[in-house]
Amino acid sequence: MKNTFGISVAVTLFGESHGPEIGAVIDGLAPGIPVDETFIAAQLTLRRPAGRISTSRQEADAFRIVSGVFEGRTTGTPLTVLIPNADTRSADYQRGPARPGHADYTAFTKYHGFEDYRGGGHFSGRITAALVAAGAIVIPALRAKGILIGTHVARCAGIDDVPFGEDPAADLEKLNSLPFAVLDEERGKRMRAAIESAAEKGDSVGGILETVVTGLPAGVGEPWFDTVESVLSHALFSVPAVKGVEFGDGFALADMTGSRANDPLRMKDGRPVSLTNHNGGVNGGITSGMPLVFRCAVKPTPSISLEQQTVDPAAGEDVVLAVKGRHDPAIVHRARIVVDSVAALALCDLLALRYGTDWLAVTDDCSSL
Amino acid sequence: MKNTFGISVAVTLFGESHGPEIGAVIDGLAPGIPVDETFIAAQLTLRRPAGRISTSRQEADAFRIVSGVFEGRTTGTPLTVLIPNADTRSADYQRGPARPGHADYTAFTKYHGFEDYRGGGHFSGRITAALVAAGAIVIPALRAKGILIGTHVARCAGIDDVPFGEDPAADLEKLNSLPFAVLDEERGKRMRAAIESAAEKGDSVGGILETVVTGLPAGVGEPWFDTVESVLSHALFSVPAVKGVEFGDGFALADMTGSRANDPLRMKDGRPVSLTNHNGGVNGGITSGMPLVFRCAVKPTPSISLEQQTVDPAAGEDVVLAVKGRHDPAIVHRARIVVDSVAALALCDLLALRYGTDWLAVTDDCSSL
Amino acid sequence: MKNTFGISVAVTLFGESHGPEIGAVIDGLAPGIPVDETFIAAQLTLRRPAGRISTSRQEADAFRIVSGVFEGRTTGTPLTVLIPNADTRSADYQRGPARPGHADYTAFTKYHGFEDYRGGGHFSGRITAALVAAGAIVIPALRAKGILIGTHVARCAGIDDVPFGEDPAADLEKLNSLPFAVLDEERGKRMRAAIESAAEKGDSVGGILETVVTGLPAGVGEPWFDTVESVLSHALFSVPAVKGVEFGDGFALADMTGSRANDPLRMKDGRPVSLTNHNGGVNGGITSGMPLVFRCAVKPTPSISLEQQTVDPAAGEDVVLAVKGRHDPAIVHRARIVVDSVAALALCDLLALRYGTDWLAVTDDCSSL
Amino acid sequence: MKNTFGISVAVTLFGESHGPEIGAVIDGLAPGIPVDETFIAAQLTLRRPAGRISTSRQEADAFRIVSGVFEGRTTGTPLTVLIPNADTRSADYQRGPARPGHADYTAFTKYHGFEDYRGGGHFSGRITAALVAAGAIVIPALRAKGILIGTHVARCAGIDDVPFGEDPAADLEKLNSLPFAVLDEERGKRMRAAIESAAEKGDSVGGILETVVTGLPAGVGEPWFDTVESVLSHALFSVPAVKGVEFGDGFALADMTGSRANDPLRMKDGRPVSLTNHNGGVNGGITSGMPLVFRCAVKPTPSISLEQQTVDPAAGEDVVLAVKGRHDPAIVHRARIVVDSVAALALCDLLALRYGTDWLAVTDDCSSL
Repeated sequence: MKNTFGISVAVTLFGESHGPEIGAVIDGLAPGIPVDETFIAAQLTLRRPAGRISTSRQEADAFRIVSGVFEGRTTGTPLTVLIPNADTRSADYQRGPARPGHADYTAFTKYHGFEDYRGGGHFSGRITAALVAAGAIVIPALRAKGILIGTHVARCAGIDDVPFGEDPAADLEKLNSLPFAVLDEERGKRMRAAIESAAEKGDSVGGILETVVTGLPAGVGEPWFDTVESVLSHALFSVPAVKGVEFGDGFALADMTGSRANDPLRMKDGRPVSLTNHNGGVNGGITSGMPLVFRCAVKPTPSISLEQQTVDPAAGEDVVLAVKGRHDPAIVHRARIVVDSVAALALCDLLALRYGTDWLAVTDDCSSL
Repeated sequence: MKNTFGISVAVTLFGESHGPEIGAVIDGLAPGIPVDETFIAAQLTLRRPAGRISTSRQEADAFRIVSGVFEGRTTGTPLTVLIPNADTRSADYQRGPARPGHADYTAFTKYHGFEDYRGGGHFSGRITAALVAAGAIVIPALRAKGILIGTHVARCAGIDDVPFGEDPAADLEKLNSLPFAVLDEERGKRMRAAIESAAEKGDSVGGILETVVTGLPAGVGEPWFDTVESVLSHALFSVPAVKGVEFGDGFALADMTGSRANDPLRMKDGRPVSLTNHNGGVNGGITSGMPLVFRCAVKPTPSISLEQQTVDPAAGEDVVLAVKGRHDPAIVHRARIVVDSVAALALCDLLALRYGTDWLAVTDDCSSL
Repeated sequence: MKNTFGISVAVTLFGESHGPEIGAVIDGLAPGIPVDETFIAAQLTLRRPAGRISTSRQEADAFRIVSGVFEGRTTGTPLTVLIPNADTRSADYQRGPARPGHADYTAFTKYHGFEDYRGGGHFSGRITAALVAAGAIVIPALRAKGILIGTHVARCAGIDDVPFGEDPAADLEKLNSLPFAVLDEERGKRMRAAIESAAEKGDSVGGILETVVTGLPAGVGEPWFDTVESVLSHALFSVPAVKGVEFGDGFALADMTGSRANDPLRMKDGRPVSLTNHNGGVNGGITSGMPLVFRCAVKPTPSISLEQQTVDPAAGEDVVLAVKGRHDPAIVHRARIVVDSVAALALCDLLALRYGTDWLAVTDDCSSL
Repeated sequence: MKNTFGISVAVTLFGESHGPEIGAVIDGLAPGIPVDETFIAAQLTLRRPAGRISTSRQEADAFRIVSGVFEGRTTGTPLTVLIPNADTRSADYQRGPARPGHADYTAFTKYHGFEDYRGGGHFSGRITAALVAAGAIVIPALRAKGILIGTHVARCAGIDDVPFGEDPAADLEKLNSLPFAVLDEERGKRMRAAIESAAEKGDSVGGILETVVTGLPAGVGEPWFDTVESVLSHALFSVPAVKGVEFGDGFALADMTGSRANDPLRMKDGRPVSLTNHNGGVNGGITSGMPLVFRCAVKPTPSISLEQQTVDPAAGEDVVLAVKGRHDPAIVHRARIVVDSVAALALCDLLALRYGTDWLAVTDDCSSL
């Protein structure tokens, strides 16, 4: 089940950049979850390229749900969302040189040249629209259980955002509707200026996304192989351009001493809480009840208009390439919605495995677990 | 299948730190693979604590294989390796305060107090001995196919090792038998001195492991969800203390421009190769045929003898803890064998899915794939 | 992954009887398999109700493939086929009494009343159209490898067809295009007359389907849990109305002695063959190279117009029901295409696991395996 | 995961007939389930051959649990049970002719001759001892939830037992401790006489096992692919010698009319119950709350001492074989404990998926679900 993720709640992705439709099937959802099409549309808009810092490809993203929803609620059977590819200019993309940093050559090798190469085919970032639509089904359901998820652009083009504050849940409320999600507006402006500057040079930039999840119950995850970190990183490394994932202080922990890295515990309101959160809400692969914190490294968009050395894999020849067409000088700000979506789906799966298939539909929050 | 990893080649781990035996079942191995018990013993020795920089707990690691091997070769049916826990001093560990940075509290919450708490139980690093034994079955089989894997301590206590050279395969040959795996001996000495210094203070240090895999065929991995990075990170985040995983230049890619991060391609000996390897041998989740490179952040060992604030979860009380017993002031140098083992098992699974269950037994190398 | 079947080649089904579209995603197909839309249409026609012995619901079954096919061949990425529900008369079906023998009550209980109850929703036989379309992708690919599959109505309304002859592959050639698949035309006529007679009484009949697969290589399947019989029965019991599955002589073996049931082996053309095939081509869960033979018991269609005692589960009341609308007095003759489809998909999965993901695309037959 | 069954509660089997130990790992068990070693021993005794109607191979079955149990209860981490092979007379079994009806030839083909051929190796019925031990962990846990499971020899050597009575739960109480499980003692005597008679002729007999499960909640199972029938048949066809599985009236339904086969529903104590149970407690793949009823066809034991035609697959030669050594003239009466065990494990998995991982440990019965 290569293009499927999850065990109890599973999502399957399909479609190609220039095919007629892309889509996702979510199976294993609890019955009775309200489906908010306005929220799905809003999430798709946040993912969609906009303005000078993104590609000029514009998709209406007129999704439709063809199964699994009846009278506005999930039925419990597979929910399928389809998104037509309205704005495909296939003439822009023809088999030719492998774009460096893209999957063109690896796809050619894997599929022996039978892949739909137009616009990156099944490897295109376009497919993440279906993932975002799928995520938008479950994010409100998690919220109804008191579980909030959100991501900011923690770093872009070498510029840092400020960190989350004392009350990350409050930060998430503001963050989640921003088109360019930063905690500090001024730093966000500088990031956007840096993206525009890269665009003018025909180049691109990358960044780091930082995600926080509040309200997760303690005790979720497995000691070996299905640790929370394992399951989430599995999902996160599927997001195109993600090349690193870390939890809590992550790579910075490598330079700490144990006396610094160990989060001291104290009883508070009858439950253990930690005074710091260097471990990012996970110990031994299991959630501790503290906010779950992780960061994803997003590489610079590989499509650039500067000349590059590459090969034409079908011809077996060296060539020089200057990629034409529509490109994003950065995708890190758009990818944050994809990260939220895929992480929300992964968490739903872990929660359904632990608490049963109907759990997500129960409207009370999970503070009593 | 929580404590099982893999689809076509799957490993299941079991056992507790202070139980009678720990072990692993590997299922889906090709029949006819020679099993080298000397190599298994050597790998277990490299994982085992030794000298002043490790815990004084000494295990003979007298493993025995009770199924799946006949006349020195794999049968193709589940291979089970058992390792008795000879040196268990249960009196050292009793239910009490949750050790900060450990899984004690999260395990207590998850298992409602029914977990075997002695020595960390199923969460103990001890269980990695079974994983190393399992890995030692497949590492020589991969080698027979021309696929080499190895890891060095790229950083420890803030001290960097030198990077891999032009010919990483040659580096691996030297590295894999070293008790403290560094490419530069002098830097390794400084790391060990720093570990000893932390030990004297009752503290601990962490580090970064860098792994390279050479000889992997191009075209392995899936575009969504089962990318090579997804599958490997899933396995790697199961290794205790790993809090970050990155591929290629990883988090450093976030600060690069596309023109720098994109690896230029050139034809060489009839195949495309890249002139740089910032993407670590993976593009779009699929192997490119370049060396696979990844790094794991290993946090400092949580067991320290310095006083720490914590709670007794069963009693629901705040306490002060000074951990007694045998501890490692660092595990990063021991964890590298675990990383090699778990990565080798994950790669075998991906290769068996792609090329079939018998592929690993074929003795020719895979350069023609 | 509840509505997904398969590991290396996996099919996911979605849709409801009266929703806008139903469909299937097939993931893990080898790239380069020719896709024959004419054959898909022909298979859908064979599944479709026709004439006096079937429901008068008529669907054009105007399928479209929206992903995974490029220039007439599979790409290797998920293939999605969608079939619009053109002829839905929702007024015929409203929430009301649970139809005895149907899933109405069990669905109500499982989904707490949130299920799309119209026309049986996701439980409807209508969904098998998507399964047949999926099967029609792989049946010609198996055929290109020398593997033929086909099913006859071995028994209907108490009337037996004749058994397969000496050369079952020859029988399959004739059988597979028949609208009512029997080996003996005269017996088929009597079966159809019995179906019509039941229809006149407002009742329905069942039957037994017998399937044979020729050309399968020996050595496919696993000893425990993933035996060929386990995997196939898992798939076959998903076909609505199937209540029994047996391999070889099946239940008749229970009355034989070992000396009768054991198939004697002889060398022929350098390979062992058995002189009889009481075990149906499977020993110890592994294929023997003999024709694979299995039978499915299909219960009589539960929708009948005779009065029945039942309950209204939402109201919690006893009621009397006479089902109106369009019904099949028998589905056994239509189900055979579904059985072929689901069995073909299951076999593709087993073969891809054993021989690798690209195997199905290779055009040579598998006689050399 | 070939030798693993289950998703949330998973069992992995390992070992060979003449290896040092066989065993099972059960993962995903709720923490806190009491483990009754006396019951495990009793179940192993019921599986063990005894008297004139069984092989004279005698195993003490001195199992030991090496992980997953602490202070008499499950910990929630993988539970491993090991059973030494005490009584292995390898000289009785050497590579030679393939025994007809056995897996000898198919194993040879699948594993290319590397399999442990002694005594059937991993295909031996001996491995079912580990499965029975695993089942004996969960059967009392199901019982504590009000779910009873039991099996009788419904037919053997052509002789029928009487059917279950009005109160199958009462029948199960008597049945489960009998060494030869029949509802009618007199018919059981005749069956045993027929088995002895076959043994005297050097031949063997088969039979049919009928299982009933009472107390299962309604709403368990999935519409497509993971129907209750699919999941159970997957498990049941792993039991050696099972060649057919049917639910409810099974193959007899094929000859009924819909008006007969449809089970009429009536309200009783506030819930719908059916007046008959032709569908065996499953409709649309989902449990209805009625007793779950299924039957397995068990073929005659293939090991017979009569002369048989066969081949020596390694030599590629025709030979005549008269199997020597210890054989069962029937295994149907022993297999019933294996059927109970594997079905109990499969049901635990379905229940844990639906109600969460901790559900099985809750001591109240499930009548309120």
